[in-house]
Amino acid sequence: MTVAELETPALLIDLDIMEANLARMAEYAGAHGLRLRPHTKTHKIPELGARQMALGAAGLTVAKTTEAEVMVRSGTKDLLIAYPVLGRKKLDRLMKVAGETRVTVALDSEYAARELSGAAQKAGREIAVLAEFDAGLGRVGVKPEEVVGLARVVSSLPSLKFDGITFYPGHIKQWDSAGEVAFQELGKLLKKVCGESRAAGLEPRIVSGGSTPTWFRSHELPELNEIRPGTYIFNDRNTMKSGACTLDQCAASMLVTVVSTAVEGQVIIDGGSKTFSSDLCVGGGVGHGCIPEAPGSVFRRMNEEHGYVDIAGTETAFEIGQRLRVIPNHICVAMNLHENVFGIRGDQVEKCWRVEGRGKLQ
Amino acid sequence: MTVAELETPALLIDLDIMEANLARMAEYAGAHGLRLRPHTKTHKIPELGARQMALGAAGLTVAKTTEAEVMVRSGTKDLLIAYPVLGRKKLDRLMKVAGETRVTVALDSEYAARELSGAAQKAGREIAVLAEFDAGLGRVGVKPEEVVGLARVVSSLPSLKFDGITFYPGHIKQWDSAGEVAFQELGKLLKKVCGESRAAGLEPRIVSGGSTPTWFRSHELPELNEIRPGTYIFNDRNTMKSGACTLDQCAASMLVTVVSTAVEGQVIIDGGSKTFSSDLCVGGGVGHGCIPEAPGSVFRRMNEEHGYVDIAGTETAFEIGQRLRVIPNHICVAMNLHENVFGIRGDQVEKCWRVEGRGKLQ
Repeated sequence: MTVAELETPALLIDLDIMEANLARMAEYAGAHGLRLRPHTKTHKIPELGARQMALGAAGLTVAKTTEAEVMVRSGTKDLLIAYPVLGRKKLDRLMKVAGETRVTVALDSEYAARELSGAAQKAGREIAVLAEFDAGLGRVGVKPEEVVGLARVVSSLPSLKFDGITFYPGHIKQWDSAGEVAFQELGKLLKKVCGESRAAGLEPRIVSGGSTPTWFRSHELPELNEIRPGTYIFNDRNTMKSGACTLDQCAASMLVTVVSTAVEGQVIIDGGSKTFSSDLCVGGGVGHGCIPEAPGSVFRRMNEEHGYVDIAGTETAFEIGQRLRVIPNHICVAMNLHENVFGIRGDQVEKCWRVEGRGKLQ
Repeated sequence: MTVAELETPALLIDLDIMEANLARMAEYAGAHGLRLRPHTKTHKIPELGARQMALGAAGLTVAKTTEAEVMVRSGTKDLLIAYPVLGRKKLDRLMKVAGETRVTVALDSEYAARELSGAAQKAGREIAVLAEFDAGLGRVGVKPEEVVGLARVVSSLPSLKFDGITFYPGHIKQWDSAGEVAFQELGKLLKKVCGESRAAGLEPRIVSGGSTPTWFRSHELPELNEIRPGTYIFNDRNTMKSGACTLDQCAASMLVTVVSTAVEGQVIIDGGSKTFSSDLCVGGGVGHGCIPEAPGSVFRRMNEEHGYVDIAGTETAFEIGQRLRVIPNHICVAMNLHENVFGIRGDQVEKCWRVEGRGKLQ
């Protein structure tokens, strides 16, 4: 099938770019002796998880137990659930997954540790645990000075194995001066947390962090030995803005059709918040995506099925029925809206993947 | 099953409230002699479309051909695709649907009309057409003075039947003074457009408009004879803000669990942009939803799987593992993220619906 034969809106993945992105990260991790445990919430496709493993990843990361059930089909021998697992049904599911692969859970409370320990004991499984601390995002994670206490609780509980420390540097989104300062602070914090843990006799075998915006500077943090980037497989407009990729490293684009030119200075495309998601541009930038073939155009607004593209500032001519490709602001949430996505090489559609892990809220 | 047995996040529909919402709209439409063709993009569930028909709806509305293929299972004898249908495959699908039920398409260009006519001719079907004009939103729709021209084109094309005029008053979101002025303008515009159409010998059998924020004032527009509200079946925080419903008329809520209390003055819930969508509050209000059981709390930020609830301003106490219900900003986009949703009465889960029309982008 050719790209021209696809209906719109369609999420396209340029396979050559994706492969180059995967190879670049694998090489970087290898060159710096970093374990790579990619976050698969970006793609939610077991075949792509398997590809990441084949390129040398040490394991895979998921956000929830329902994603774990899907991603275990990748054949990975190591799965990190980077989220506290609460509730009996979720814990039951997790224990089933733990029968198929080694499972690690990141958590930040004694409550979550005790629940996990109880379920693991009952199931006769050992679960590895990473103690999560707040590196500056202010989301989850204990205070740095509380890591040792949490690690002690984990170590003391039956059927749990304290396996190290984790954090998510989501507060570093751009490499401006604030980003640089935050990165330097992170280095100091990691040194302190790891030092205190070791002094308490709790060796952090894994020190896991890293996001897509920070991936290429991970080797500057000597304590870090594992990274978990997700978005890098495809990249998106926000990753470009962060400085962690260029336009020609963006593998994902939305193929859309111009459906109306009735309002002057504007065209309407057949994708809105149910196609792209309504995620804004990180750092307060304008628009919901960029259209490289129409420089100066602004994807200014959206409703559920309508995208409003302001064309006053572009030389490009538009007509009804014309097709465009849009780089989304945030590929992880866009991917989550599509039942199927298409792997392309040039004009050829070589792959149709079902996004198997999407919508698995229950 | 009881609500307590559900995993989180779970989208709950209070069946008594939903039934009351459906009845209220049916009564209003009946009392004022308005055809009701509810927009099913809100629920995407054929069984709920059938319920709307059973309560007297004249037909149903969808946003795309893939939704039409799903919603025809409701048994409706009349389906409006409120979106121009472009592209051979979409037109082929539409013609198949037209073999099962009466189909109407809203469009705003000669291009879309000619494409539709060609496909209908080839398939041996007659498709009804509503000519769409821009009532002030600036999205799709020809200028009011161009309606007659578009209607003439439609009337002249084989296999199409000009059936009337349509618009979407999406620019009226709140009943402040700007909303009032816009509503008065809309009345004048409708009178003019309908008058011109009649004068040209093109009787608009259907004059279709209406949104959820404007529904209860539709009878003040004498030309209007059909309304297409969608959100009213569940309502949401934005509908409340518009003045078109009260809190006790909100049927949909997200059941979530507190997963972290590590950061002071804040709790993290297990729902973010992949559970609620990142749609903001209409009119610039703060937050991603409201938590009626914790007055003064603010659902301030979200990431993909994390919701940040600021609890500094509430008296309510929170602990890890606790469950909360959140009224989302925009139920249509939230529904679109869930594979299954749950109909409840009190503590009992009486229904589990698959959201059959979601993710049908291809």
